[in-house]
Amino acid sequence: MKLATFTAGQTPEIGIVEGDSIVSLSRAAPRLAASMIELIARWDALESEVRKTSGPRLALKDVRLLPPILRPGKILAIGLNYADHIRETGREMPTKQVWFCKQPTAANGPYDPIVLPKVSAEVDYEAELVVVIGKGGRHIAKDSAAKAVFGYCAGNDVSARDWQSATPQWMLGKSFDTHAPFGPWIVTADEIGDPHTLGLRSFVNGEKRQDSNTKHLVFNVWDQIEHVSKVMTLEPGDLIFTGTPGGVGMAMTPPCFLKPGDRVRIEVDRLGALDAVCRAEE
Amino acid sequence: MKLATFTAGQTPEIGIVEGDSIVSLSRAAPRLAASMIELIARWDALESEVRKTSGPRLALKDVRLLPPILRPGKILAIGLNYADHIRETGREMPTKQVWFCKQPTAANGPYDPIVLPKVSAEVDYEAELVVVIGKGGRHIAKDSAAKAVFGYCAGNDVSARDWQSATPQWMLGKSFDTHAPFGPWIVTADEIGDPHTLGLRSFVNGEKRQDSNTKHLVFNVWDQIEHVSKVMTLEPGDLIFTGTPGGVGMAMTPPCFLKPGDRVRIEVDRLGALDAVCRAEE
Repeated sequence: MKLATFTAGQTPEIGIVEGDSIVSLSRAAPRLAASMIELIARWDALESEVRKTSGPRLALKDVRLLPPILRPGKILAIGLNYADHIRETGREMPTKQVWFCKQPTAANGPYDPIVLPKVSAEVDYEAELVVVIGKGGRHIAKDSAAKAVFGYCAGNDVSARDWQSATPQWMLGKSFDTHAPFGPWIVTADEIGDPHTLGLRSFVNGEKRQDSNTKHLVFNVWDQIEHVSKVMTLEPGDLIFTGTPGGVGMAMTPPCFLKPGDRVRIEVDRLGALDAVCRAEE
Repeated sequence: MKLATFTAGQTPEIGIVEGDSIVSLSRAAPRLAASMIELIARWDALESEVRKTSGPRLALKDVRLLPPILRPGKILAIGLNYADHIRETGREMPTKQVWFCKQPTAANGPYDPIVLPKVSAEVDYEAELVVVIGKGGRHIAKDSAAKAVFGYCAGNDVSARDWQSATPQWMLGKSFDTHAPFGPWIVTADEIGDPHTLGLRSFVNGEKRQDSNTKHLVFNVWDQIEHVSKVMTLEPGDLIFTGTPGGVGMAMTPPCFLKPGDRVRIEVDRLGALDAVCRAEE
C-alpha cells in the first residue's frame, strides 16, 4: 500500500495512492487518525479498516503531495555508507557507523522547491533510501529489525557543504529548511520485502549523477536499526536516511553545486521519485 | 511565572508553580491548551487568561514533575562555549559556533533517574542554561533574539563520552534515552531579563564539580539564536542547550564517570535545580 499526506486545499489529509488517484482517508474516515504518525502508531488496530476504505477519490494531479510525515520526531542519517561515495570524499572506510541527523523542520514535500539559502554557496544532493519506523523500540536486534519498520520512501539528503565542513559537526549543514525532501509517499514494508535490492538514482537537469543499488550499503538497514536503537527509542514515524552512493556534486571536477532553476530528480525502484526545482532564498 | 508539566496520576497536566504548590491549568481551564508546546505557541492569546487562573492547587510534593516540554521538536546544543571547558578538553578556542543536537526522545524530568546505558562506561554530566524558544522564526537578528525566547530552564547535557568520541559526530553520544534532563520548570523570560548573569553549578554526591556564570559564555544566547536561525526555523518549544563550563568528569584526573547510585544536582540561579540519581540500565 502507498500512503501519502496531501492537501487539496488548506488542510493536510492522509490517503491511499492507487494508480493516478488518491483515496482520502481523512474524508472517508475522519476519526481514524489525525495524522500519518498517528496512523502508523495505531496501524495494528487500523490496518484492516484502512484496507477496506474506498472513497472519496481525487486525481493525484489535483492535489499537492506534502512530506508523508509532516514533522517527523527524528530524522536520523548515516554517513559514508556506500564504498564509491566514501572513495569520492577521500575518507577511510569507517569501521563504525557514523550517524548525524537533520532537524525535523527540514522536512519537505516530494515536488516542493529546494531552497538555496542566502548563506550557502555549496548546496548538494544525495539520493537515499529512507526508512519509516513503525513499531520501533529500543535494543532491536538485527534479526528482528524488519518488524520495527513501517515502510520506505525515496529521500534527498540535501547538504550545504560549506556549512557541513565549517565545523567537525555536520548537523547544521544538513538541517536547512526544505533540505529533507522525502516521499513521494510511503510504500508499506510488506510491498517491498528485502529493502537491499533497490536501484537508486539522481538526475540534475536530466543528467544522471548517481546510479547505484541498496545492495551496496556498507551497513545495511538492519545493522543501522540495531545500532541506533542501542542508544535511543525509535518511535512511529521516525525516519532513517540510509546513506548515499557516489556521484554527488561536491566530488565532481570541478565541484558542481545546485543553482536556482536546477531540477533534481531522485528515483528509488518501486518507491517512486522526488522531482524538485531549486530556487534561491528570497 | 514558572510553568511546569507534571502528573498527579496518569495524565500529564500543565500548571503554574507558586511557592510549594502548583495551580493546574489543565484542570482549571482544560480547553486552554493541550500541552506546554501549544500553550507556548498561543501565548500571546492565552497569557492574560493564564495569569488570572487561580485553582485547583496541588502541593508540589504530591506531583511528579515531567520534562516541561514532553517531546521538544528540536533539542539543539552548542559545544565548546566556556573558555575553561574548552581548555580542559584540550581543544582550540573555536572561531565558529559548533552545533550538535540531542534527539527529542532523550528528554527527561528534573528528578527522574538518569539511566546509565549497558553499552557505555563513560557517562558524564554537563550543567547548562537551557533556552526555551517562544515565537521563534528564521533569520532572527541578535538585536531582536530576546523576542524569540519564551523562557529558561536548568539542563544537564548528559554525555556518553565513549559514544561521543567513537566517530567525529557527537550526536549518538548525546542522545541516549533520559540524557536530556531539563527543568524543573520553565521560568518565563520576563522574570529573568538578561540571561547572561546567571550562576550555574553541578554537584555529584554533594561535591561541587562545576561553578561558573553565564556571563562567561563565549557565544551568548543572542549570538546562538542568530546563528542557528540562519539555517532553520525555530519553533515554539524548541530547546537550546547553551554550553557547559569547566569541571566535567571526563577532565578530572583520573576521569570520573557517573556510577549507579550517584546523585547529580544541577543548579542555575533563579531557575531552580535538577536533582537526579543515576541507575544502571536494566
